Amino acid sequence: MIMPVLPNVSPGYLRPLLPSGPPEEGEPWSDIQADIDKIIIPGLTHWQSPKFMAFFPCNSSYPGMLGEMYSGAFNAAAFNWICSPAVTELETVVMDWIAKLLALPDCFQSAGEGGGIIQGTASEVVLTALVAARERLIRRKLGDMPEGDERMDKAADLRGKMVALGSEHAHSSTQKAAVIAGTRFRTVPAPRSTNFSVSGKALRKTIEELKEKGLEPFYFTVTIGSTGTCAVDDLEGIAEVARDYPDLWIHVDAAYAGSALICPEYQHLCTPIANFDSFNFNLHKWLLTNFDCSAFFIKRRKDLIDTYSITPSYLRNQFTESGLVTDYRDWQIPLGRRFRSLKVWFVLRTYGVNGLREFIRGHVKLGEYFQGLLETRPDVFSVVTPAAFALTTFQINPSKPNAPSSPATKSNPAHEAYLNDFTNDAEAQYREDANRVTKEVYERVNAGGEFFLTSTVVCGLYVIRVVSAVERSEEKYMKRVFEVLVDTAEDVVKGKEKA
Amino acid sequence: MIMPVLPNVSPGYLRPLLPSGPPEEGEPWSDIQADIDKIIIPGLTHWQSPKFMAFFPCNSSYPGMLGEMYSGAFNAAAFNWICSPAVTELETVVMDWIAKLLALPDCFQSAGEGGGIIQGTASEVVLTALVAARERLIRRKLGDMPEGDERMDKAADLRGKMVALGSEHAHSSTQKAAVIAGTRFRTVPAPRSTNFSVSGKALRKTIEELKEKGLEPFYFTVTIGSTGTCAVDDLEGIAEVARDYPDLWIHVDAAYAGSALICPEYQHLCTPIANFDSFNFNLHKWLLTNFDCSAFFIKRRKDLIDTYSITPSYLRNQFTESGLVTDYRDWQIPLGRRFRSLKVWFVLRTYGVNGLREFIRGHVKLGEYFQGLLETRPDVFSVVTPAAFALTTFQINPSKPNAPSSPATKSNPAHEAYLNDFTNDAEAQYREDANRVTKEVYERVNAGGEFFLTSTVVCGLYVIRVVSAVERSEEKYMKRVFEVLVDTAEDVVKGKEKA
Repeated sequence: MIMPVLPNVSPGYLRPLLPSGPPEEGEPWSDIQADIDKIIIPGLTHWQSPKFMAFFPCNSSYPGMLGEMYSGAFNAAAFNWICSPAVTELETVVMDWIAKLLALPDCFQSAGEGGGIIQGTASEVVLTALVAARERLIRRKLGDMPEGDERMDKAADLRGKMVALGSEHAHSSTQKAAVIAGTRFRTVPAPRSTNFSVSGKALRKTIEELKEKGLEPFYFTVTIGSTGTCAVDDLEGIAEVARDYPDLWIHVDAAYAGSALICPEYQHLCTPIANFDSFNFNLHKWLLTNFDCSAFFIKRRKDLIDTYSITPSYLRNQFTESGLVTDYRDWQIPLGRRFRSLKVWFVLRTYGVNGLREFIRGHVKLGEYFQGLLETRPDVFSVVTPAAFALTTFQINPSKPNAPSSPATKSNPAHEAYLNDFTNDAEAQYREDANRVTKEVYERVNAGGEFFLTSTVVCGLYVIRVVSAVERSEEKYMKRVFEVLVDTAEDVVKGKEKA
Repeated sequence: MIMPVLPNVSPGYLRPLLPSGPPEEGEPWSDIQADIDKIIIPGLTHWQSPKFMAFFPCNSSYPGMLGEMYSGAFNAAAFNWICSPAVTELETVVMDWIAKLLALPDCFQSAGEGGGIIQGTASEVVLTALVAARERLIRRKLGDMPEGDERMDKAADLRGKMVALGSEHAHSSTQKAAVIAGTRFRTVPAPRSTNFSVSGKALRKTIEELKEKGLEPFYFTVTIGSTGTCAVDDLEGIAEVARDYPDLWIHVDAAYAGSALICPEYQHLCTPIANFDSFNFNLHKWLLTNFDCSAFFIKRRKDLIDTYSITPSYLRNQFTESGLVTDYRDWQIPLGRRFRSLKVWFVLRTYGVNGLREFIRGHVKLGEYFQGLLETRPDVFSVVTPAAFALTTFQINPSKPNAPSSPATKSNPAHEAYLNDFTNDAEAQYREDANRVTKEVYERVNAGGEFFLTSTVVCGLYVIRVVSAVERSEEKYMKRVFEVLVDTAEDVVKGKEKA
């Protein structure tokens, strides 16, 4: 039996089921376990359900869970080498394995000046990179100027001029990181004409505009697999910009889609990354490693250490001072760290490279299968972005009377025209109608509770996103969600009330 | 049998024991498990060992581990309410329980304008508070000024003048947070004469000095239980400063010692917290909850949301928009979150309030017992800070020939004088000698491998820290570490070579 993917609870359901404070005396485990079944499980959204097609997945696995269990058993706040040498050393080795598995350029291996670290989430990674970028630029601009008030004033002036950049479709984490870092933030256009990707040209234009205003672009998030549509920015074109602006820190956020880079058919995307400063992807999304686990690779680890290393006396020790060990606390924002590399090691060994590639390819195929299903009903659906990394986005076609011309053919030129441009009122009206019915269908499907989908808005288009990348995803579920979508769309377009 | 607390491995021990990459085909679990025993466990530092007396503890427990296991089973990136209602709602309830258990002022309960959230570490909490403080001040100063270039320029100017403050003995996390936030950082003196605590007077003086220079102090970390010596800043005095400087965000960091606030005999410390903006302590240190788990309480949750809330279209949903639910992503830096409240709930219920108080009081007593042991040998040891929250710091007395007068009496006036002031060369020499032998004893004890201690430097004094707060701490281990310290000190003072 599959449990419903979405819980049937209303905000505030839990508090009345609990006492007003902790018990005076301890309770037996059996009482606690009974409450998990009774009051917690009914309030869960099941991210492991094959009917979870929302956001991006958060796949767990047996070895991933065992990794968390051993980490719990070895419980420690392992912030430097001596705090638990195995924690640091396994992480360095396993991150090198991952870099190799993804065919990342050699500069990201720990043997040179780079290396990998596991952080919690892509948001933390982006913030870590962005702040390091800000401080690197200050170090470069102020050079040997002695520490003191004058340097602090100059640095403050510089920070005030700095602008972080990201695609208009980049994850909100870049904007949030800019808020935290206290810098300006500007989006780079990524229109439908480039499939919602940032081109090298668009990035260059934004940089030049900002520089003309006396501002200082210092950081850019390149996206491989945007949250909305899994768009891939123009890596080659951006690599050229990188060569012209060596002070611009370019970070590659491949939070979800990065897992596909373990398959040789995607590894052409990795070559241009040699031109960028850092890269991350989340093994907790699509690589069967329990949440949280974001792999962050850096070309020059010194760029992190120069910003984050602060060593008070209680953290000094002979090993750190020998320079022979890695103290990952100097590569990150928090001090303490969990033993996250265990779960990565367990997953890689349990599945093997071939098992993981098969896992990813199965989902990519399911995405294509789903897109194919949508295309059997061009009267109902318009694919906005074809299956990419197991994500397809689409709209529901509004009722014919409002369409500029019939959307009944497969190529659907009227609809295509409307997607590209709005040159007249009829087309604008069509867009509005399409957005409205798409939103209505989306809300009805989620309210139905059988599937959990998400929607987004890209360049004015309200689209439904369907992702087929949960461990238990199967053709039969893709077929079923398609049927539910067809039925719901037909009801909505015909103006039928909610069932 | 107790395993040695410190592993007997050298930097780089692990890599030669592992293959150069992940296997092509999957391996059976039995092979992986064998490697855990063979190559991981020998490289661990055992934080659960009763002979671990370093840093602060990182206690795990059976219910704490079960909490992590269930969190792994329910694996999700639960960033907003609909992502898993139970994750959000249990956290809110359990944080209210904790606030009550600690007798925190009512303003930190979720029923009003405040509430609690679980974050990973105190470093993240301090950063979250510090950045929110920076942006709150900007909002207050710029008021209704419209968004746009002019406001951004003004905000940048303001940020450039801002200074974050912390005790000279505050944890390095405040300084690191200021680096990340791009603000200045200044320490507030906390001399031996105030037992290494910041007084209200010292804070006021620092603020006034900075304001005279045209700078803008905007944030201060008050410490309850400093890392070096478990000093408690002058909460009442600082509360008065808070009333005079309402734009100064005052955050209370009780990372380790905060757990003791569950005992009524410590709760007088909680009353003045009503005057401050936020408070945190780490349940993963002293409250039997597996790492990581830092409880962060805020008086006005709006102060966080106004800074951290960014809602792109793919995160919009009817529940968030209804305003009836808490989306904890807007209270923190990362987006995704683990189901950490489960382990807190399990721990509170398994031990009960009385069980947890007994646990804390046992450790406090062991600290006093250890201090008492040191005081039986005033010829060898000088207590620098008496047992506080199960931490005692001390120096080894150097050999008599260099001492200004004999340190053989219990009250040891010569040594006391030297600790307070250095008025002549003999005293300065004594200090240097004491620091040297203390460091030597510390290094020898750790090299011996039976115990793991840490040292620190406070106001020029090199001290050894001994903490008796691991779940398995017992009198017999405190007695044994005392004996090892006596033997080692005698060897060092007599100039004997390392055994």
